[in-house]
Amino acid sequence: MADIIHRVGIKAPISKVYEALATVEGVAGWWTKETTGESKPGGTIEVLFSTPAGKRIGGMKMEVVTLEPNKKVHWRFISGPEEWIGTDAIFDLSQEGDYTIVLFGHKNWRQAVEFMAHCSMKWGTFMMSLKELVETGRGKPSPNDVKIDNWN
Amino acid sequence: MADIIHRVGIKAPISKVYEALATVEGVAGWWTKETTGESKPGGTIEVLFSTPAGKRIGGMKMEVVTLEPNKKVHWRFISGPEEWIGTDAIFDLSQEGDYTIVLFGHKNWRQAVEFMAHCSMKWGTFMMSLKELVETGRGKPSPNDVKIDNWN
Repeated sequence: MADIIHRVGIKAPISKVYEALATVEGVAGWWTKETTGESKPGGTIEVLFSTPAGKRIGGMKMEVVTLEPNKKVHWRFISGPEEWIGTDAIFDLSQEGDYTIVLFGHKNWRQAVEFMAHCSMKWGTFMMSLKELVETGRGKPSPNDVKIDNWN
Repeated sequence: MADIIHRVGIKAPISKVYEALATVEGVAGWWTKETTGESKPGGTIEVLFSTPAGKRIGGMKMEVVTLEPNKKVHWRFISGPEEWIGTDAIFDLSQEGDYTIVLFGHKNWRQAVEFMAHCSMKWGTFMMSLKELVETGRGKPSPNDVKIDNWN
């Protein structure tokens, strides 16, 4: 098993960060505009990704495992890239002074493949997008996401 | 053991990317302006980090383990944060179409601690800085690096 982990600090109340992670509207503001579904425990959220020109390049569905207000959001991927199925995305929130700290993990990859290295970089840019969304009101969700390599 | 891995694609000849990784001047252009030492196998490089106001916040020394032109750069950290000592930074280069692909690993952490999550995010921003340096001539090395949380 292999994990991606990132830590980001956001100058905002913990409730604002939680809202950006625990609602469909929030996720659409930093990860992908094409976010639909029901963000509640046991619910399913679908995220789709397209190029700026509108060509679909991928997507996944996740089950909402845990929503603990101002503390934790936990998703499990149930469809999408083969490598993602059965993996977990977990956001643990805490307050340190002026910052809300997000400890992010995309955990339980079966192998540390090259695609995982791509996803690690990409999650890093999406964590910055989350920070920008909450701090400034404007993130960089797909299709206006930061491009990092020849895969996306 | 735990590893940070990232994949970035840079629209530039592989020799330009290698130069940015294998020379002191190159590293000073994307990681930290305060880079000194000798970049040759068996040589030692020191990197220091300061705030924009000039306050020293940290640093490390690494031994250059491998320099394989246009293929690989491998450093091993010999002083700095306790968690970094004995860990390896490895950059594997390859060409894919117009892109030079950098497979980066900061490997052999003894534990996947919160500081590793911070460093994973931070390496992501430095990989973007490397990409910007090589593609545009201007990176974001410390002290002008992207700040991600309350630690730096």
